Amino acid sequence: MYELGVVYRNITRADRAAADGLAALGSATAHEAMGRVGLMKPYMRPIFPGAQVSGTAVTVLLHPGDNWMMHVAAEQIQPGDIVVAAITAECMDGYFGDLLATSFQARGAHALIIDAGVRDVKELHKMNFPVWSKAISSKGTIKATIGSVNIPVVCAGMLVTPGDVIVADDDGVVCVPAARAAQTLKAAQKRESFEGEKRAKLAAGVLGLDMYNMRDPLAAAGLKYID
Amino acid sequence: MYELGVVYRNITRADRAAADGLAALGSATAHEAMGRVGLMKPYMRPIFPGAQVSGTAVTVLLHPGDNWMMHVAAEQIQPGDIVVAAITAECMDGYFGDLLATSFQARGAHALIIDAGVRDVKELHKMNFPVWSKAISSKGTIKATIGSVNIPVVCAGMLVTPGDVIVADDDGVVCVPAARAAQTLKAAQKRESFEGEKRAKLAAGVLGLDMYNMRDPLAAAGLKYID
Amino acid sequence: MYELGVVYRNITRADRAAADGLAALGSATAHEAMGRVGLMKPYMRPIFPGAQVSGTAVTVLLHPGDNWMMHVAAEQIQPGDIVVAAITAECMDGYFGDLLATSFQARGAHALIIDAGVRDVKELHKMNFPVWSKAISSKGTIKATIGSVNIPVVCAGMLVTPGDVIVADDDGVVCVPAARAAQTLKAAQKRESFEGEKRAKLAAGVLGLDMYNMRDPLAAAGLKYID
Amino acid sequence: MYELGVVYRNITRADRAAADGLAALGSATAHEAMGRVGLMKPYMRPIFPGAQVSGTAVTVLLHPGDNWMMHVAAEQIQPGDIVVAAITAECMDGYFGDLLATSFQARGAHALIIDAGVRDVKELHKMNFPVWSKAISSKGTIKATIGSVNIPVVCAGMLVTPGDVIVADDDGVVCVPAARAAQTLKAAQKRESFEGEKRAKLAAGVLGLDMYNMRDPLAAAGLKYID
Amino acid sequence: MYELGVVYRNITRADRAAADGLAALGSATAHEAMGRVGLMKPYMRPIFPGAQVSGTAVTVLLHPGDNWMMHVAAEQIQPGDIVVAAITAECMDGYFGDLLATSFQARGAHALIIDAGVRDVKELHKMNFPVWSKAISSKGTIKATIGSVNIPVVCAGMLVTPGDVIVADDDGVVCVPAARAAQTLKAAQKRESFEGEKRAKLAAGVLGLDMYNMRDPLAAAGLKYID
Amino acid sequence: MYELGVVYRNITRADRAAADGLAALGSATAHEAMGRVGLMKPYMRPIFPGAQVSGTAVTVLLHPGDNWMMHVAAEQIQPGDIVVAAITAECMDGYFGDLLATSFQARGAHALIIDAGVRDVKELHKMNFPVWSKAISSKGTIKATIGSVNIPVVCAGMLVTPGDVIVADDDGVVCVPAARAAQTLKAAQKRESFEGEKRAKLAAGVLGLDMYNMRDPLAAAGLKYID
Repeated sequence: MYELGVVYRNITRADRAAADGLAALGSATAHEAMGRVGLMKPYMRPIFPGAQVSGTAVTVLLHPGDNWMMHVAAEQIQPGDIVVAAITAECMDGYFGDLLATSFQARGAHALIIDAGVRDVKELHKMNFPVWSKAISSKGTIKATIGSVNIPVVCAGMLVTPGDVIVADDDGVVCVPAARAAQTLKAAQKRESFEGEKRAKLAAGVLGLDMYNMRDPLAAAGLKYID
Repeated sequence: MYELGVVYRNITRADRAAADGLAALGSATAHEAMGRVGLMKPYMRPIFPGAQVSGTAVTVLLHPGDNWMMHVAAEQIQPGDIVVAAITAECMDGYFGDLLATSFQARGAHALIIDAGVRDVKELHKMNFPVWSKAISSKGTIKATIGSVNIPVVCAGMLVTPGDVIVADDDGVVCVPAARAAQTLKAAQKRESFEGEKRAKLAAGVLGLDMYNMRDPLAAAGLKYID
Repeated sequence: MYELGVVYRNITRADRAAADGLAALGSATAHEAMGRVGLMKPYMRPIFPGAQVSGTAVTVLLHPGDNWMMHVAAEQIQPGDIVVAAITAECMDGYFGDLLATSFQARGAHALIIDAGVRDVKELHKMNFPVWSKAISSKGTIKATIGSVNIPVVCAGMLVTPGDVIVADDDGVVCVPAARAAQTLKAAQKRESFEGEKRAKLAAGVLGLDMYNMRDPLAAAGLKYID
Repeated sequence: MYELGVVYRNITRADRAAADGLAALGSATAHEAMGRVGLMKPYMRPIFPGAQVSGTAVTVLLHPGDNWMMHVAAEQIQPGDIVVAAITAECMDGYFGDLLATSFQARGAHALIIDAGVRDVKELHKMNFPVWSKAISSKGTIKATIGSVNIPVVCAGMLVTPGDVIVADDDGVVCVPAARAAQTLKAAQKRESFEGEKRAKLAAGVLGLDMYNMRDPLAAAGLKYID
Repeated sequence: MYELGVVYRNITRADRAAADGLAALGSATAHEAMGRVGLMKPYMRPIFPGAQVSGTAVTVLLHPGDNWMMHVAAEQIQPGDIVVAAITAECMDGYFGDLLATSFQARGAHALIIDAGVRDVKELHKMNFPVWSKAISSKGTIKATIGSVNIPVVCAGMLVTPGDVIVADDDGVVCVPAARAAQTLKAAQKRESFEGEKRAKLAAGVLGLDMYNMRDPLAAAGLKYID
Repeated sequence: MYELGVVYRNITRADRAAADGLAALGSATAHEAMGRVGLMKPYMRPIFPGAQVSGTAVTVLLHPGDNWMMHVAAEQIQPGDIVVAAITAECMDGYFGDLLATSFQARGAHALIIDAGVRDVKELHKMNFPVWSKAISSKGTIKATIGSVNIPVVCAGMLVTPGDVIVADDDGVVCVPAARAAQTLKAAQKRESFEGEKRAKLAAGVLGLDMYNMRDPLAAAGLKYID
């Protein structure tokens, strides 16, 4: 399905305020606000805990064991972007380290999402450049075959179109289509606004059974209590 | 990314002759003819060996443990279609068995490609209804939540747009975009046409090293022979 | 949780007719008839296709890399039993081969279900002694540490109590508690009895949407058709 | 095997002193003291490092992608309990987040052990509510199908009966049957009491070969030293 | 550890009679005769059932996604050899198909053992050219980077030195060092010679407990029978 | 392939200065300096983050679930060594805990590399004794079968000969053959010396495309920019 050997220079990025605003809500709330779609596979893990980011996707398609296109992608980064890297086959090699991270960070990238491996993770942590990846591996890559930049890619099971919003934290990585970014932010904020009150009730000992009025539907579904 | 709760009734299917013609070439040749893209992840395996099919994709998006939309998809099948089923999260349940297969086969479907589990595999074999899946599981599913039919889906790591051509055999499953079906068939046939001659030479003991003129490039790359 | 170093000689086997009768229904129907519980994890696969069996469980708990208790289990086999083997830790070694299979078969065992590896699979196929296992491995085992026979064990994620009914086929392995065997057989036969008529309708082109009256609930759930 | 749709309100919890006392010993010592049984599969990992807990099990059986019964379980929690959640099929979804954790914590739960995914892990860490799980995932769940509370369940390969003692730390999760809790605590404390002296000897350079008198048995087993 | 860019033309092959003779014994018996070492990881599976071969190893080291050296290896094949292919990183691509198989077969190779993927498996079956591999994949490879031929390689966790004997069947793949081939064949034949008698006894209902005199050691180990 | 039941007391350790010096360079740089070989599989992970070590390999071959030889290995440790433990079959058990670590540390070992599980990870962290392993597991092991010490072993897919240099950090574990240690250190230092300047340029916004002169080769490879 992929168009190979092309770099799209002009992509339509999602609304900046929406793209930036989703970081604070986090991946779980964004995912719920989307109607429970958009999540990459849970094997995508942060290389260090605690980072929580959002940004607009610049995509890159790479070949197994070859990170040449990462340098091509670097030039297309604008401040607030998150690079989303897909590979044409399963690969665990370390496509990305501290030098590329220095370059990405200098261009204003917020993070890298890669369906493969990375390395120099201790340095990346020191630089505070977060990465969500499938693996960590010292294995370096070659620069021999061209892929593409800013075409739609499938990363960890999710379709990402350039300009979409990526939301990533310790819970995982969610992709919000550019056209739905503003409405998702709104829905997420609304969800979030209810949480404080709920949390207070639950902390006070109120049961979800009562707070959500679940006792009747549970009984209707046939649940039986036995003493 | 997915639009939920919709069924697109009118999709543009790839050219019928191209869609039908690719079966004979097989997934490996189709994949090469595409420039080595389009392959689903190799965990997709046939439930019985020997089937080799192609057809136009009718897509269905399902929720984990819920096969309700399979019945909705059945109505959208036209002769020569292959149903491509994606799930919104990882799931190994058995979404499909001999009853649904009877229905799909009656509608003219050539196969099912599903990024989850199936069951009744002995009966499916007897019916000669091929399935490529991620798992085999007796676990049945419920019918509670709606998904979508004929939206673009990601199945086993590959984007499939309704109407694309699916080519599947013992080597795996390839998706050829509808717009490229005819040209891919041509390229695949061309590749295939050279194979007979090559095979004869190799069978006669000619080495690939000589047939493909690899000795000089290998020496240039630094290969050394040691006696 | 396991009691080590014991062999229970007297176990209460499920009703023989029910235990024998479930083979014909198969694992998927048995699983449905149980309310969708009782299935072992789908990594349990038959070592050759086509076998479909049921029987009463004789259980054995083994240590990693040690098959000593298999010989102890052999003595407890009665005609119509299926041996269910659990290991105290993850292990892929080949605990069972053609010699043990000869012994089990001589005692009247219908099959082996083992959450580990087996070997001599070609010979087992020739002998028509079916095995469902997690792995196939040439790696032999030692005889150094005692486990137990006929205690409740967890095999591939499912609790199996000695005397329970095991139903296994190409779709997987289901455990039916002894006390529910007769009622499960009845429920399974009832399910099965409806299938012929349904199959005929579907083969004639009737859609599941109509046969199961799904159109209204789907519309109520919000499904929209787009032309 | 599972009884569906029931909530047992009266369970027999293990001796409180034993249940509480095992935390200090840790999972490895508890596991040894049990005779090397009781350990859940090692894929169960803490969502943050350093937590070390024990408590009495309240069990809950859930369906894939459905966390309805978590709310039912909350009501059955008593101070000092640990909730043990099993799923009827493999699932990585995020069944549990900070709201449920607030409720569980308010009820006095020490931890959650779940054979599936959780989310809001950063908040759970801040709340110091430890969870051992198979996955971390932003994917939310629905509330549609009833399971059971306080029936025996298999969690990560281990049978857990309501009231059993759970011991969990960075090394894993162990289940101690209620009836054996006091004796296991005693045996674990005895093991532990010998460790200080051993550690001092080893730190001083004494070899395990000498401290455990292994040289003769190794020679008897045929070990040969080659210079 | 690997020496890159070299082809060793003169390797010392194991004794031909021993190399050929081990096929009839099979991988499990060879593995036992070696003292339970030499087995490749059990993820190595035959692409079709029933093949049982042995031969002398010609090794090849390849890069991920690059099968160039396969053609170099072809020239080093002598009748009775088995090609053992290792990759410098994890890779599932299809390195080998019917054209290369035609060439290998023409040179007299008995089989291919590859710690990666293969394709054209239906044709390979028709040609009766057996392959043991980690994966089946339509994904083709490039020819860009040189590796080595006939250096010691690690394949599926096992060290293989050129000239070693490979024994492969449905149970797995074993490597017998060249220097131990003759003695392993002898030990394997001896093991095999006892099996017929044992099998007859077991088939007649004699228990392993008695045949192997296990009752006393089991009792000594503390095994208790409970009625 | 393995010689069982032997302990080699005299091994040739790599040059001490080279062995010690590689720690500062790290696994990724060492791996590149070797020509991209020598890396263990990326499933080998540190039990706590931040450790970065190198040392000379003392190897030990163990049986599944049996850590007897660990005590034999302890005696062969010299200051600056790293113990590399391989198992004859896949095993996740916890072979190593704080007592053995105390002994290893007292003997001067820098770390343990084990293709299996470890336990007491919280204590190991407190002791600052780093371990790279495949798993963490409370499961203890027995002491019943002898293996070997200081024979060449395959650990996580890599051949390690006693005396080789091991370099391990958060990116993974690399093995440098003793004979190549000095030259690898030199090459690694040279690589490293260029990194500072590169990093400064990239941080200043210079693109890798320009710094590495990639624009022409990319154009020659056919890369097209689309506005």
